[in-house]
Amino acid sequence: MSAIEELIGELSRLPGIGRKTATRLTYFLLKRPSDTSRRLARALDAVADRVGPCSVCGNLSETDPCSICADPRRDPHVVCVVEEASDIGAIERTGAYRGLYHVLEGHLSPLDGIGPEDLRIEPLRARLQNGTAVREVIVATNPSMEGEVTATYVRGVVEAAGVRVTRIALGLPVGGDLEYADSVTVAQALAARREMKDA
Amino acid sequence: MSAIEELIGELSRLPGIGRKTATRLTYFLLKRPSDTSRRLARALDAVADRVGPCSVCGNLSETDPCSICADPRRDPHVVCVVEEASDIGAIERTGAYRGLYHVLEGHLSPLDGIGPEDLRIEPLRARLQNGTAVREVIVATNPSMEGEVTATYVRGVVEAAGVRVTRIALGLPVGGDLEYADSVTVAQALAARREMKDA
Repeated sequence: MSAIEELIGELSRLPGIGRKTATRLTYFLLKRPSDTSRRLARALDAVADRVGPCSVCGNLSETDPCSICADPRRDPHVVCVVEEASDIGAIERTGAYRGLYHVLEGHLSPLDGIGPEDLRIEPLRARLQNGTAVREVIVATNPSMEGEVTATYVRGVVEAAGVRVTRIALGLPVGGDLEYADSVTVAQALAARREMKDA
Repeated sequence: MSAIEELIGELSRLPGIGRKTATRLTYFLLKRPSDTSRRLARALDAVADRVGPCSVCGNLSETDPCSICADPRRDPHVVCVVEEASDIGAIERTGAYRGLYHVLEGHLSPLDGIGPEDLRIEPLRARLQNGTAVREVIVATNPSMEGEVTATYVRGVVEAAGVRVTRIALGLPVGGDLEYADSVTVAQALAARREMKDA
């Protein structure tokens, strides 16, 4: 296979990029100085080489522990549970949160066969063991069906550890995606978090 | 800047890929085995290393001359002039053309300051010098304002060399609908009408 065909094929593997777009991107790169392709290649290699999950919170980072876990100015008493590492950016951008994070790496989805053992639930349990500094867990899973199911499950885990558990407020549009929410909405939702109690 | 930020930045430089899409693609790659990023990086390097314009026709290729120019079964008497190397694929896919190509690497656009000296017009003139095998030049620039201006200019160059020059037909697209065709296309199709003869 030619180098051009190969690149079109690799680009087509990316989500939302079909063969036509991949072809357009390939010829765009071919019209540029080869520099452009190389810079993108270096950036891809750097991510593959250097970025991995933080062993404490699961955030994707070039250091372990990540810069948030290692920051002494962060409040170790509050942990915000999110589905994906990419959700952390949405909360950090508000500037309204000073606690730590815990990344689940997904959500419960029984229909897809994704259970608690497929998520970073055990590391969360471990963080809440006796003698923990954690006094509150804010559950910030997505306001979707799966996110709610996951929130309910996490609530059980946190309550069993005797720690206060709150849910980020549903000021987020239902069915939406935390990663793409605007900062004002996310900040509002953080401020309006409620106790998780039986209805 | 972090490796993640760097990759988002590089992906954002691609046409039609904004910051949100670049972020989505980056986290998609981060969730995959690092293999996926590396394969894409290798494909980009291969294109940067190995692909360049054919010194004869300007087609983008890993060999020089390109596989079309080097193919002895291609008809050297016919040259099809296109704006971009990516246009060659559209003609090759028809399987209906056996001649050679000439890539202009753009179109005339006086408003953008793009004149004949910015296109591969001189190499075309050189190909049509005395003793050339070329008997016909088919101008297949785009049916756009700039493409038509470019076609007219190319016509002058080819005629000056005493070579026959033709223009790819403009008309209704096969499978199209007369009712929804734009009036410029319909006018073209009317003007370019041909006699209906027995086969």
